[in-house]
Amino acid sequence: MTGQVLASWNEGPARRAVLEYVDRATTPGTGFVEPADRIAAFDNDGTLWVEQPLPPQFDFVFRAWEEEVKADPSLASRQPYKALVERDQGFFEGLATQDPEAVASLLEAFARSWAGTTPGEFDARVREWTRTVRDQRFGVPYVELVYRPMLELFDLLRANGFRVFVCSGGGRDFMRAFAEDTWGILKENVIGSAAAYTYTDGRIVRSHELLGSLDLGPGKPEHIFAHTGRLPAFAGGNADVDIEMLRSAAFALLVRHDDDRREYAYTKGAEASLAAAERFGWAVVSMKDDWATVF
Amino acid sequence: MTGQVLASWNEGPARRAVLEYVDRATTPGTGFVEPADRIAAFDNDGTLWVEQPLPPQFDFVFRAWEEEVKADPSLASRQPYKALVERDQGFFEGLATQDPEAVASLLEAFARSWAGTTPGEFDARVREWTRTVRDQRFGVPYVELVYRPMLELFDLLRANGFRVFVCSGGGRDFMRAFAEDTWGILKENVIGSAAAYTYTDGRIVRSHELLGSLDLGPGKPEHIFAHTGRLPAFAGGNADVDIEMLRSAAFALLVRHDDDRREYAYTKGAEASLAAAERFGWAVVSMKDDWATVF
Repeated sequence: MTGQVLASWNEGPARRAVLEYVDRATTPGTGFVEPADRIAAFDNDGTLWVEQPLPPQFDFVFRAWEEEVKADPSLASRQPYKALVERDQGFFEGLATQDPEAVASLLEAFARSWAGTTPGEFDARVREWTRTVRDQRFGVPYVELVYRPMLELFDLLRANGFRVFVCSGGGRDFMRAFAEDTWGILKENVIGSAAAYTYTDGRIVRSHELLGSLDLGPGKPEHIFAHTGRLPAFAGGNADVDIEMLRSAAFALLVRHDDDRREYAYTKGAEASLAAAERFGWAVVSMKDDWATVF
Repeated sequence: MTGQVLASWNEGPARRAVLEYVDRATTPGTGFVEPADRIAAFDNDGTLWVEQPLPPQFDFVFRAWEEEVKADPSLASRQPYKALVERDQGFFEGLATQDPEAVASLLEAFARSWAGTTPGEFDARVREWTRTVRDQRFGVPYVELVYRPMLELFDLLRANGFRVFVCSGGGRDFMRAFAEDTWGILKENVIGSAAAYTYTDGRIVRSHELLGSLDLGPGKPEHIFAHTGRLPAFAGGNADVDIEMLRSAAFALLVRHDDDRREYAYTKGAEASLAAAERFGWAVVSMKDDWATVF
């Protein structure tokens, strides 16, 4: 970062609210935040990178499941493989709204796909995917679809003594594979839904079980507390599954997707969080108005 | 830290091995450890502070259980309350050797004692305990029974780009209450056995369930991987329940309790780890010979 802070942000209420909060948090007096308490937590899909038409992790997962269906065609009659074969996007959108049946079948399938792999093997697959697969609309690898203004916000927060964490419903180990290169965030600051691993014969191996709760909705503050021993001072999100995390923070920032020219415009899955922003006075980022540059 | 590194360590093989490892890890060439991989993990009981006659957390827990037995005398006929009332130390020593029945009854009792409390309430109780209760032999609060040479080792590691974590079978939240003041380690770098918490009505509340596995034996590398996404480069321990963590590290240091004048001399619960140290060439710290100062 050289020169101005939040350089890709337009002057406006969102930028002003962030700068005022950071100033208040670091200035002795009302609103001062003790250095140890300076935890910032950000959702990933739709907050740090593009989540349309589906969060990028689905692309990674679908490629694995396509291989599995090829190897065992009987899977094609069962969810979630059936929805994949039939291109039933509605099924997968159920995850964002937490349709329990869809979630259960997805988790089971996730578990099956990578049980028995070591972290090194899983990392290599994700890295191969980030290197070779491109988003259809933008024609670049997904890790290039990270919002530059948010990386600048990380810089600002770190420069003011905040530790920046990502806290996403997506896979912890999936995100950790690119967190350091893409976000400049160490793996240990990435919190997400995760498989349990067992240590056997000197190796860490992925099991078919989930560790703790899904990192969605109330699961977000639960995961943040378990990981850090605190609730966040600063939180950023963009969807209804972020509401509890945003409410648990002293300062909350909600990204509104209203830029169909440079990104996407949609409110689906964010209706309640947009209402909560109004009610609780959260800072709302209009991608269209508040960001001079998106990527 | 002023002046010499590892100032309370005597010249000798242990100090030499540590300095050589850190030098190798930070010098380009064979044995260089990438900055992101510089994770150091330390057991707590017997590695960072005194664990005789029982790990200090038992003192904290026993005081709570005594109150519970007073309130409900029928508990006195059940384990672990029975062992407490009858001063049956053997029962509690079973935990270190992982007697499954003792562990199960202990976990159940732990769960019962603090279910429903918020982190703030639990923290306050631990802080009251660290402030007021004194170790019988030494006559000082338990947090003053931390080994000064280990704090100097933290300083050395941090000065060389290592992130220092504590990874203990003891309670995560118990340790987090004093980690920052006592060790200079942020709560988020403290890993341990932990209750699950739920986020309800805007509050984080402790449940009666365990989150994941006990942080003992194979649970240690499992917890470290889950928390950090890596296995440790450097690990320190003192007991058989640390073997898997020590084996998972590139450099392992084992504390040998052989100083009954300044601390305690015992090998119980450490027989296998002392043999493993020999077999795998771990650095062994003789408290008697290698430490000029203990506290």
